[in-house]
Amino acid sequence: MIGPDMATLLAVVMTDARLSSEQAHAALRDATNESFNCISVDGHTSTNDTALLLASGKASGKALSAAALESFRQALTELCQELAKMIPDDGEGATHLIEMQVEGCANKDDADRIARTVAASPLVKCAVAGGDPNWGRIVSAAGYAGVPFDPKKIRLEINGLAIFGDGGPLPFDAKTVSTSMKENRLTRLRLVFGEGSAAARFWASDLNEEYVRFNSEYST
Amino acid sequence: MIGPDMATLLAVVMTDARLSSEQAHAALRDATNESFNCISVDGHTSTNDTALLLASGKASGKALSAAALESFRQALTELCQELAKMIPDDGEGATHLIEMQVEGCANKDDADRIARTVAASPLVKCAVAGGDPNWGRIVSAAGYAGVPFDPKKIRLEINGLAIFGDGGPLPFDAKTVSTSMKENRLTRLRLVFGEGSAAARFWASDLNEEYVRFNSEYST
Repeated sequence: MIGPDMATLLAVVMTDARLSSEQAHAALRDATNESFNCISVDGHTSTNDTALLLASGKASGKALSAAALESFRQALTELCQELAKMIPDDGEGATHLIEMQVEGCANKDDADRIARTVAASPLVKCAVAGGDPNWGRIVSAAGYAGVPFDPKKIRLEINGLAIFGDGGPLPFDAKTVSTSMKENRLTRLRLVFGEGSAAARFWASDLNEEYVRFNSEYST
Repeated sequence: MIGPDMATLLAVVMTDARLSSEQAHAALRDATNESFNCISVDGHTSTNDTALLLASGKASGKALSAAALESFRQALTELCQELAKMIPDDGEGATHLIEMQVEGCANKDDADRIARTVAASPLVKCAVAGGDPNWGRIVSAAGYAGVPFDPKKIRLEINGLAIFGDGGPLPFDAKTVSTSMKENRLTRLRLVFGEGSAAARFWASDLNEEYVRFNSEYST
């Protein structure tokens, strides 16, 4: 959890766009599902999170056009993602932000579930902390997400470097991948399946000794 | 995971009891559901576990009586629990074995889900490692298990000492509870709900710096 002595998350977005209550509600709900609901420090759900969108309507006298509304929604989603990513990036002891990108799934629910499961695996989080391109942990975590898939059609990339495909590990230079993981705060994991076209993204902290130290010594 | 360089779990139980194939199968399935399927080091499912029950039938010429079969089933479950508990007790860096007992749920599935969710929380595992009677982490983890319950009817005990009830923390001596947690390798968490009579048990490792060190430094 973040900031255990205060309300865990308070996000407030303000705009002068003229949005109806329904438009604001739908835009924030969709943006939240692609941002604040796609992050995790340690999987322990917090008890008091709030995201608010306040629209004054001062920008113009008339309602937004469909194109303007779509632009607003995209911008809101990107803004919420920027805010949301700060949380695992600032997780207790985190030295890496993990971006888990899942593609090629049969439906959005499958993609979400795999992205969340892999990013929540303590073994994957430890591997990222140690700069270890441990494809076995990533692929096996995908395997226990409860989503059926053909393992022969998976492709895995770490920081853009292909390390697993055609049903097994690809020839790759472990040192190059490891160096890339160690030198960048952001570690990008990309898992592409051959089941369809649904995708999902999830962001998580890595798992460090500092996390354990902080959460063992902090007492109620 | 345990023993990453070899098959993860191979459990073999041998008996000379005269069991039919159906009896052996049912007994092992039920025993496994109360033992090997109720443990976790870190939640990362392993890919290759096997539990076998071999019955030679040498003990007697005739089939077991109903009473003898029931005794056998109880003994098998207890044996499997003893074996299963050794795994999280020997988890990487573990300094405590957590026994999570859940009672008073509406059904077995609810009880299982709460026991598993609380025992899997990294914050709960860190609190146990640090000897911290952190009721907030335990109760909030139960709250996100996806099972509806009345929080006013929960009672929480740690090592037999009541620390939460009547909808809030009870007066307890934090030092006494903490000392009990630090001095015993087994930490017993007991959560009693007021929803019914179903119960479940789950065993997990605590979460230590040593776990993180081992799993960051070990490479493929």
